[in-house]
Amino acid sequence: MHNFTFCTPTKVIFGRDIEGSIGETLRGYGATKALLHYGGGSVKRSGLLDKVKASLEAAGLAYVEMGGVEPNPKLSLIRKGIELCRAEGVDFLLAVGGGSVIDSAKAIGVGLANGCDPWDFIESKTAPSKCMAVGVVLTLAAAGSEMSNSDVMTNDENQLKRGITSEAVRPVVAFLNPENTFTVSKFQTGCGIVDTMMHTLERYFTGDGDCDLTERLAEGLLIAVRDAGRAAIADPADYEARATLMWASSLSHNDITGCGKNRKFPVHKIEHDLSGVHDNIAHGAGLSVLFPAWADYMLELGHDVMKFAQLANRVWGVEMNFDHPEVTARGGIRAMRAYFREIGMPVTLQELGLTPDDYEEIVSKTVLGGTVLKSYIPLGREEILAIYRHAE
Amino acid sequence: MHNFTFCTPTKVIFGRDIEGSIGETLRGYGATKALLHYGGGSVKRSGLLDKVKASLEAAGLAYVEMGGVEPNPKLSLIRKGIELCRAEGVDFLLAVGGGSVIDSAKAIGVGLANGCDPWDFIESKTAPSKCMAVGVVLTLAAAGSEMSNSDVMTNDENQLKRGITSEAVRPVVAFLNPENTFTVSKFQTGCGIVDTMMHTLERYFTGDGDCDLTERLAEGLLIAVRDAGRAAIADPADYEARATLMWASSLSHNDITGCGKNRKFPVHKIEHDLSGVHDNIAHGAGLSVLFPAWADYMLELGHDVMKFAQLANRVWGVEMNFDHPEVTARGGIRAMRAYFREIGMPVTLQELGLTPDDYEEIVSKTVLGGTVLKSYIPLGREEILAIYRHAE
Repeated sequence: MHNFTFCTPTKVIFGRDIEGSIGETLRGYGATKALLHYGGGSVKRSGLLDKVKASLEAAGLAYVEMGGVEPNPKLSLIRKGIELCRAEGVDFLLAVGGGSVIDSAKAIGVGLANGCDPWDFIESKTAPSKCMAVGVVLTLAAAGSEMSNSDVMTNDENQLKRGITSEAVRPVVAFLNPENTFTVSKFQTGCGIVDTMMHTLERYFTGDGDCDLTERLAEGLLIAVRDAGRAAIADPADYEARATLMWASSLSHNDITGCGKNRKFPVHKIEHDLSGVHDNIAHGAGLSVLFPAWADYMLELGHDVMKFAQLANRVWGVEMNFDHPEVTARGGIRAMRAYFREIGMPVTLQELGLTPDDYEEIVSKTVLGGTVLKSYIPLGREEILAIYRHAE
Repeated sequence: MHNFTFCTPTKVIFGRDIEGSIGETLRGYGATKALLHYGGGSVKRSGLLDKVKASLEAAGLAYVEMGGVEPNPKLSLIRKGIELCRAEGVDFLLAVGGGSVIDSAKAIGVGLANGCDPWDFIESKTAPSKCMAVGVVLTLAAAGSEMSNSDVMTNDENQLKRGITSEAVRPVVAFLNPENTFTVSKFQTGCGIVDTMMHTLERYFTGDGDCDLTERLAEGLLIAVRDAGRAAIADPADYEARATLMWASSLSHNDITGCGKNRKFPVHKIEHDLSGVHDNIAHGAGLSVLFPAWADYMLELGHDVMKFAQLANRVWGVEMNFDHPEVTARGGIRAMRAYFREIGMPVTLQELGLTPDDYEEIVSKTVLGGTVLKSYIPLGREEILAIYRHAE
């Protein structure tokens, strides 16, 4: 177990009928005027936005609105948000939505608190030490951004999708009502299930050796998500299943499943350029295609066979083959792909509409300037193309 | 899953060679003069106290010392601590020790911040809203007080051992170096293993129905503690095992294993009077005797058979008897008692030196003024005596 620092101060208010407490809670953080940040019309149609406004008004809080956040949040809108908040004297950013809305709000907060463009931190590869306070009313169990220290945005000038990692961007408060996810489509629910699993699995496979407690927690979370995922796909209004998926999405990315490990997130980095270049592709769909392919590639090279077998045995219920652990390991990847299919997720690049002609452009972004991805094996252009071929 | 609020802002700094950062970290919290609070001579003999002092001095922090905290920390010493800190102008409380030292520091912080006697909150059954900042340099993996919102003290005028629960008493920072537990005796290590397991199990058995994610995390933690416990008893300097026990002790009581459940802690409440009246009995030893007895009693009445079977199957490796789940459930209790014996812990009241003549005095404290313990079944005098008889 490596040395680590763990600090997740986000206050989580979880359950039914919690929206009435939003205004008073924000006042407790010193807010006087909030940006209400959201995506399309779903938070209006569902009535959630009206509930949030009513709570802010009841607490005597002013607010301005800015909707229009798209999946893979765009730097251009973030810049408009920074201008708006400056002009309006906003002192609290309230994201009402999923990961894209939260990450857009975080990027606005970074720009406001540091008096610069948030992309500067990506270009200079530095981490911001300040961010305006961000709160979250979550509508999608997926990204885990509501408790995380990460913030991913897409530069719509060059299609680069990149992230900032900083303790400063952890939201101060997150309102998690599973009922607000009942109307999420089966496909988006599937994307969320995959994203939550991947945040956990990218911390699981790190080549760091013993880390039993962290791995046991990860396995428990994966099993709970596996079963709740099936239940939520079958019945979108299953409260217990939606609650499990929502809480798991937060825990999968607040780092409780990564303590003591060196996290590198190779598959996320590869996928970010896939959905960055082809932004009609959902992040979760890109991951459900690429993670099993990465796993195949790792096993082909003989890396981490016993850890893949452990996952197969403990999470996917594959009986251990003590003579041939690699058989168990491969059985786990097979079971994972079958599960992804069962919940309606793609597992091949063809299903995403990509052909071999598309790979070069995407991979060229990932290895821009000769970058080699740090993973517990380095991944350059040829290695990433080999992973793509495992996803055909 | 019930509605819940989860907020654990304690910053955990975990691993080897972290003591040099203590002074600068405390300065970051605005400390200028600290109380160095500790127990007996072990932190002096091990050299830990000198390392802590060197780090405080290097950061230009003043400090005063107060040792002498005993197991089951005494209100009389807490009161002296409050006087000392007032006279010296202390603005940060640094506990160097285990749960008793931390809880003593928390009680001092409650007295200082609220300008009253900490026992007042116990008498009035109210929770303090303020506490002076507490930091922890942990030397014992057991109580989980380093991340918890609880603070237990013993009133040495009437032998009542009682607790305060308040978000205000969560430490702001905890320094967790597993090497500082290498010298903990086998018996105290066993007590810590039991205490960690019990913090998890008291949250596991609540009669609340579905809470799969929380229970899966609890089971993962219990399995990791089970195995690391054996390893640490066999080799006290096994870093990975000590690290697992240390991190698990924090996670078992920061409430991550209780989210969505109504926690009642009946066995802790019963045990507090056992070690309150007989303060030569360690809390962990009292729990290893009383928890299996409580479980026997619950099963005898037919409560929560399937949950006991689930624990038996998932954590203790007892094969599920689908015709007779109560057989599996009882097998789990048997396996738990066998494990406690294996790590050198008592499982009968006789081993604690108690005879039936002693029960009445202890139980009379627990049901003082006709109190009936709130558990998912109410426990009055007769019920608690029945539990004692299961521990003979």
